[in-house]
Amino acid sequence: MTGLRTDLYELRMAASYLRRDMTEPATFSLFARRLPARRGFLVAAGLAEALDFLESFTFDDDELAYLRDAVGFDQATLGALAGLRFTGDVWAVPEGRVVFADEPLLEVTAPIAEAQLVETGVLNLITFHTTVASKAARCRLAAGSAQLVDFAFRRTHGIEAGAAAARASAIAGFAATSHVEAARRYGLTPSGTMAHSYVEAFPDERAAFRAFAADYPTNPIFLVDTYDTPAGVRAAVDVVTELGLTGSVGVRLDSGDLAALARQARAILDGAGLTRAQIVASGSLDEDIIAGIVATGAPIDAYGVGTKMGVSYDAPSLDSAYKLVGVGDRPVLKLSPGKATLPGPKQVFRAPAAAGGDIVGLRDEPPPVGREPLLVPVMRGGRRLDAADPAGEVRAARRRFDADLAWLPEPARRLADPAPLTAAVSPALAALHERVARQVVPGGPRGTVPRP
Amino acid sequence: MTGLRTDLYELRMAASYLRRDMTEPATFSLFARRLPARRGFLVAAGLAEALDFLESFTFDDDELAYLRDAVGFDQATLGALAGLRFTGDVWAVPEGRVVFADEPLLEVTAPIAEAQLVETGVLNLITFHTTVASKAARCRLAAGSAQLVDFAFRRTHGIEAGAAAARASAIAGFAATSHVEAARRYGLTPSGTMAHSYVEAFPDERAAFRAFAADYPTNPIFLVDTYDTPAGVRAAVDVVTELGLTGSVGVRLDSGDLAALARQARAILDGAGLTRAQIVASGSLDEDIIAGIVATGAPIDAYGVGTKMGVSYDAPSLDSAYKLVGVGDRPVLKLSPGKATLPGPKQVFRAPAAAGGDIVGLRDEPPPVGREPLLVPVMRGGRRLDAADPAGEVRAARRRFDADLAWLPEPARRLADPAPLTAAVSPALAALHERVARQVVPGGPRGTVPRP
Repeated sequence: MTGLRTDLYELRMAASYLRRDMTEPATFSLFARRLPARRGFLVAAGLAEALDFLESFTFDDDELAYLRDAVGFDQATLGALAGLRFTGDVWAVPEGRVVFADEPLLEVTAPIAEAQLVETGVLNLITFHTTVASKAARCRLAAGSAQLVDFAFRRTHGIEAGAAAARASAIAGFAATSHVEAARRYGLTPSGTMAHSYVEAFPDERAAFRAFAADYPTNPIFLVDTYDTPAGVRAAVDVVTELGLTGSVGVRLDSGDLAALARQARAILDGAGLTRAQIVASGSLDEDIIAGIVATGAPIDAYGVGTKMGVSYDAPSLDSAYKLVGVGDRPVLKLSPGKATLPGPKQVFRAPAAAGGDIVGLRDEPPPVGREPLLVPVMRGGRRLDAADPAGEVRAARRRFDADLAWLPEPARRLADPAPLTAAVSPALAALHERVARQVVPGGPRGTVPRP
Repeated sequence: MTGLRTDLYELRMAASYLRRDMTEPATFSLFARRLPARRGFLVAAGLAEALDFLESFTFDDDELAYLRDAVGFDQATLGALAGLRFTGDVWAVPEGRVVFADEPLLEVTAPIAEAQLVETGVLNLITFHTTVASKAARCRLAAGSAQLVDFAFRRTHGIEAGAAAARASAIAGFAATSHVEAARRYGLTPSGTMAHSYVEAFPDERAAFRAFAADYPTNPIFLVDTYDTPAGVRAAVDVVTELGLTGSVGVRLDSGDLAALARQARAILDGAGLTRAQIVASGSLDEDIIAGIVATGAPIDAYGVGTKMGVSYDAPSLDSAYKLVGVGDRPVLKLSPGKATLPGPKQVFRAPAAAGGDIVGLRDEPPPVGREPLLVPVMRGGRRLDAADPAGEVRAARRRFDADLAWLPEPARRLADPAPLTAAVSPALAALHERVARQVVPGGPRGTVPRP
């Protein structure tokens, strides 16, 4: 019941392969051709979702009827699709790892019809999750020691995209999410306070704060900017004092000059003896605004980051590709200008010190001395090698990102004008490319070996 | 089973209202505070999805258990949530209509806990669909008489976002979509040809074209840029001639200088007598690139537009808001700097000639002479007034957009530096705002009536 979640051309190509009994295994490689401006690195994400998609890919009777009636597929093709499952092997970079342009994030090897049919879904999921995790990672770099909370759900690209943004930002180190269903599904910490409408629903701000504190006495965060921020902070202090709250209290600033207001709020809170009260800031934040606030030394303990992270506002997608690199024993490539590909199943070899960057080579070549291969087998014969574990996968991915962040050199970490590492091509891969390109275009490839 | 698809703060506020028996109807207004740069107008979309969301909003036992265990809700609150359904009324601008900043797209009136709980989902869906429909509309303005096909699925923000992009672009006038499931669900025309991988899977380009033409003899489109575009066009011509195809054939260009290659391809096709063969262009297209190609007079019949439209690349979200404007009989507002709101349920009044722009007034004031109210009732007591009809809704929305596009003045239609219309505030709404603002802040509002 997911088989129509693909592009029509995948179905047409798959049907054509099935009719010809073209069942040789084909390998497709998924990678980003280049990084968006202002990205020094990518954070691999979306693999667990892609594996779910692969395991559930089937055609039900209604879908087959649609393909008969609206697309004109014949009975033989429909019969072949009815029994089709994804039976291939997948190698992938584990989620949370840092990667760069031209490095395969995932490779699928399967009978070509299967590998083709799943292209759209797999490319979609890996691209989207990686895009958002990479944006969230920049927010983390900006925030320093302050905590980050995902507030993106209300403006992500649909309901499911909200859960994906919560997951991707958790991989990049966000501490909590406003998205309750995502928190449940992925074992995240749900977080939330009050909206302006809550303050407005009571006769005045103090009445609203009193009600909220009565209901949530252990950890109320008061939204203080509905009418006038310093007055709102004083109202919060009065309510905390009046009710004798001893738990973890705080205020949230959602508009105005956040750095200046945070200093005012801190002074009011400290003056009332609430030195441990938290200050949370929100409102159209992104990594640049956060970095600007942090640079002023403003006393902000946590940032709620929403839309700009959840849609990766400055770069809402990646120039990603899912390219055929081999059919049976035959490596293949593409020479289209600006979109050339390297042949053969690949591996990325990383050195413990980032200096010099990664090497992209062939999957079956021996790793260069001291280098770690990034791609690992994750699915064999259409079955995952590890059982699905939504919460555990996020925790493991977050640990990997923590480790890779410590590894990442400063030029790639910079928010402004970052310098991503560029991967080198191994001699074995370069030789294979030259040989295959000569076969495709007699007289040799039109140009040099594409980088890497 | 959708009740956790909300932000935690909605649940905390709703619980607080339920505990206090605050069941007065509240009205929330959903609007865009301002248009993104390079948008002269918005195309309202996502309403049918939002109504689906409202009709299905419930908490199941597992969700209630999560709220008990992870959020600490008490039994009385869980009991209230167990029976909660959305029972409110909704007014909305019908999908496909052109709207501007500060004009309500949708207004919800419901017991305040219900209206608050559905905020996140409704705001998400209307914002996302409207964002993509508005971007797709710009592609349509750029393409002139050429057809547009949605190729976005592979890089939208998840699988469901792909279907939404197909739907939103259909509303804006796209002729077809690559997304097969979306085509089935919304009654769209599925469209698709072949990928580079198909060409590479055969021993050579001609063999691939021959196989494809044999399988799809009535309408093959040959992808001609895998190795060398003019050679690819000649190969396509040879195969068409060799097989004596008489149907609707064509070529697709996916890289390089599309305008120049289209002229070359047209000459080759015409020289072979294939004067009716179509030329389709694709490859990282957006409205600016399409407009540039159209301006050269290049003989391109259709454009496949993907990522840039499907994620609304230059403006992937809207500064949208869902704001409380009334509780019971009491109109409310918010004075936060840059985020002020106007009180009371509203209506947008439009003149048949666009001159002068729309007027935003109160829902129950009489329409100014000769003006049409844009918001209509769409849900009463939690039930839609019209039965759900996914295909019919898209067709009706597309007709509305066609009509509004004819109405839209040139300055708002421009791709570069568009000048959106700005709505005026009716005298009745301005008077209400002044009265309410004086009550909230003794001494009067801090500043003037917010525009509109």
